[in-house]
Amino acid sequence: KIDPDRLWDSLMEMAKIGPGVAGGNNRQTLTDEDAEGRALFQNWCEAAGCTMGLDQMGNMFAQRDGTDPDALPVYVGSHLDTQPTGGKYDGILGVLGGLEIIRTMNDLGIKTKHPIVVTNFTNEEGTRYAPAMLSSGVFAGIHTQDWAYARTDAEGKSFGDELQRIGWRGEEEVGARKMHAFFELHIEQGPILEAEGKDIGVVTHGQGLSWTQVTITGKDSHTGSTPMPMRRDAGLGMARVLEKVNEIALSHAPHAVGAAGHIEVYPNSRNVIPGKTVFTVDFRSPELSVIEDMEARLREEGQKIADDMDVQIEFEKVGGFDPVAFDEGCVTAVRNAAERLGYSHMNLISGAGHDACWINRVAPTAMVMCPCVDGLSHNEAEEITKDWAKAGADVLLHAVLETAEI
Amino acid sequence: KIDPDRLWDSLMEMAKIGPGVAGGNNRQTLTDEDAEGRALFQNWCEAAGCTMGLDQMGNMFAQRDGTDPDALPVYVGSHLDTQPTGGKYDGILGVLGGLEIIRTMNDLGIKTKHPIVVTNFTNEEGTRYAPAMLSSGVFAGIHTQDWAYARTDAEGKSFGDELQRIGWRGEEEVGARKMHAFFELHIEQGPILEAEGKDIGVVTHGQGLSWTQVTITGKDSHTGSTPMPMRRDAGLGMARVLEKVNEIALSHAPHAVGAAGHIEVYPNSRNVIPGKTVFTVDFRSPELSVIEDMEARLREEGQKIADDMDVQIEFEKVGGFDPVAFDEGCVTAVRNAAERLGYSHMNLISGAGHDACWINRVAPTAMVMCPCVDGLSHNEAEEITKDWAKAGADVLLHAVLETAEI
Ligand SMILES: NC(=O)NCCC(=O)O
Ligand SMILES: NC(=O)NCCC(=O)O
Repeated sequence: KIDPDRLWDSLMEMAKIGPGVAGGNNRQTLTDEDAEGRALFQNWCEAAGCTMGLDQMGNMFAQRDGTDPDALPVYVGSHLDTQPTGGKYDGILGVLGGLEIIRTMNDLGIKTKHPIVVTNFTNEEGTRYAPAMLSSGVFAGIHTQDWAYARTDAEGKSFGDELQRIGWRGEEEVGARKMHAFFELHIEQGPILEAEGKDIGVVTHGQGLSWTQVTITGKDSHTGSTPMPMRRDAGLGMARVLEKVNEIALSHAPHAVGAAGHIEVYPNSRNVIPGKTVFTVDFRSPELSVIEDMEARLREEGQKIADDMDVQIEFEKVGGFDPVAFDEGCVTAVRNAAERLGYSHMNLISGAGHDACWINRVAPTAMVMCPCVDGLSHNEAEEITKDWAKAGADVLLHAVLETAEI
Repeated sequence: KIDPDRLWDSLMEMAKIGPGVAGGNNRQTLTDEDAEGRALFQNWCEAAGCTMGLDQMGNMFAQRDGTDPDALPVYVGSHLDTQPTGGKYDGILGVLGGLEIIRTMNDLGIKTKHPIVVTNFTNEEGTRYAPAMLSSGVFAGIHTQDWAYARTDAEGKSFGDELQRIGWRGEEEVGARKMHAFFELHIEQGPILEAEGKDIGVVTHGQGLSWTQVTITGKDSHTGSTPMPMRRDAGLGMARVLEKVNEIALSHAPHAVGAAGHIEVYPNSRNVIPGKTVFTVDFRSPELSVIEDMEARLREEGQKIADDMDVQIEFEKVGGFDPVAFDEGCVTAVRNAAERLGYSHMNLISGAGHDACWINRVAPTAMVMCPCVDGLSHNEAEEITKDWAKAGADVLLHAVLETAEI
């Protein structure tokens, strides 16, 4: 069993880097704070006897060797980057939980046939650079590295330049590593485990996602002297599309969700009718056909709204992945571990996207989830208990030991 | 008659300072560009033999002396600041048109009993610092100077500090000057004069304005893993309020307008349900009772929307003025001037707010308007013809000469 106090102390230590304004974290990808968090993680890994690999996307790989030089490593991990107003556990628990199982193996002198590698994937959150899970996506061959490097943030700074700037661009070719298996421990970010009183979620599937960036172009003009019939109000157009997004998602309830988190208004002056709005619609469902239906209806209904208002509307898909079915063998290893350790558990469909969703394309993959208070995540108030973290890391340890062969 | 080429050249010269991205201007109040525009104006005024006064709000007063030392000056002017994506004429025409009538009087050796003062009021636009017409408002005793100094921009910089920083805080007590009359020349910013084929708008009234800043507080949470029924989406709440704003304004058509030009979303991340939105609703009408009705319904309907969605809503009035009836004597002087000069004219109600609306509280005031292409303003593509500018400045000259007594 892992050491819950040591795991918790590491979580709290990491949370000191890039503190938020309300008890959480703002340690967005490729910022100075991200670099500082990476350095701390590297120090810890090296102190635990691991050697650190770094690829050209900045993905970090801390390896504890196995006994068989020919055996492919078992990978664990997640991401250390956070939302601008993010929590202390989303991603971090998976990385530091991975480190904790290595520390535990060291303490107990456990040797595995397969090496164990703890991974920190770059830009999982997708806030600063869309899409989310960018670097695990390049690793899995979903995106090209050139395309990823050319992603820009709101200030126009490119991913490639910023990765170079913070000093965490490695030499290793991305995706060259082969994995025996990949396990990601993560907080649920939803309310189900807590409501059902279960310690562990055995994640069998992940819902799919579609991000559509919508641009509405009207005409900026004076809010006072422009008669109502002459207005081409891109803000009002956006309001109507947002209402429609909600309606479309609800029409598939409970098998879909939809909202827009990112909204920009131009020129954003109190007495100027918005001439342009740009916003990103986030639709999700465990069923591909539902996602496709929602995307199509967004475009169709959005176009109708725009035509009615004499504004222009454009749609660009800026991120997405299909629903995922995780590897049966890995899922069974997670379930067996929970069972053996006596933790209550249930099957779950992940509501959020995870690096595991992309890695599942190139290696047998599964996820372990633990509850979080009120299902709250992407909020500085995100919270878990030490016991929940302990159960998750214990199950991760045992699933890995079974897979990596003692 | 004024010199249309000289007026036009000055307009084009001023437009070189703080150029926009699409042919217009970004010379927002209390920026370095504002300071540069002020310096140019001061040079021109001094070259025309005027002495410059500067008050503690940065309002500029260029005086051409009269023959009677005891006669109160006749004031003309407007503002040199622009929207972030503003035009070359909104405000500027009134200031440089004022300068042009002084240059014309110099050319023709005209002496007036009353001095003539050309004014540039600080922060008319209200984009960087709400409310609009801030400094004419302090001049007229509507706001205190301390309150005005404490206004902050989006970056938290205060009006007082920025006025000091750009070096245009004067010593003169604000509002100490007494005015014999005030005339403001301005582009219409609406479509009526052009549609009616009239050269001149004789502005009899100004519609009133109400700016209400609305803050909706929900709960930021994950767009993927938060079930629809648990969401408290401040973005969707805003969308519903925006639709209601439109509905409320239309219910009073054609005697009211309404929109929101300023919208902020927090934390503004693609995969975070907005936890907070802040936006400013701009309602206007020539009738006070209509404005009051719209304000009340915004609060009532907004509260209903918020209650339905389990989000919080707050309303703060951040700007406003009652409908204005301009001074009959001054309005008649404008109409007589247009008549005498043979320009076609019609009565107008100003759709926009103007410094004249506040100055009307402390001095006999009227406005002269000229058409603008497609009624477009608060847009870089704002355009007028040289003939329109000429007609406006000619009428200004003659209304002023009648009032200032040759
Ligand atoms: N786990 C997580 O919050 N990932 C960010 C990508 C997403 O929006 O699902
Ligand atoms: N004239 C003008 O655009 N003034 C700005 C204040 C307003 O919004 O009416």
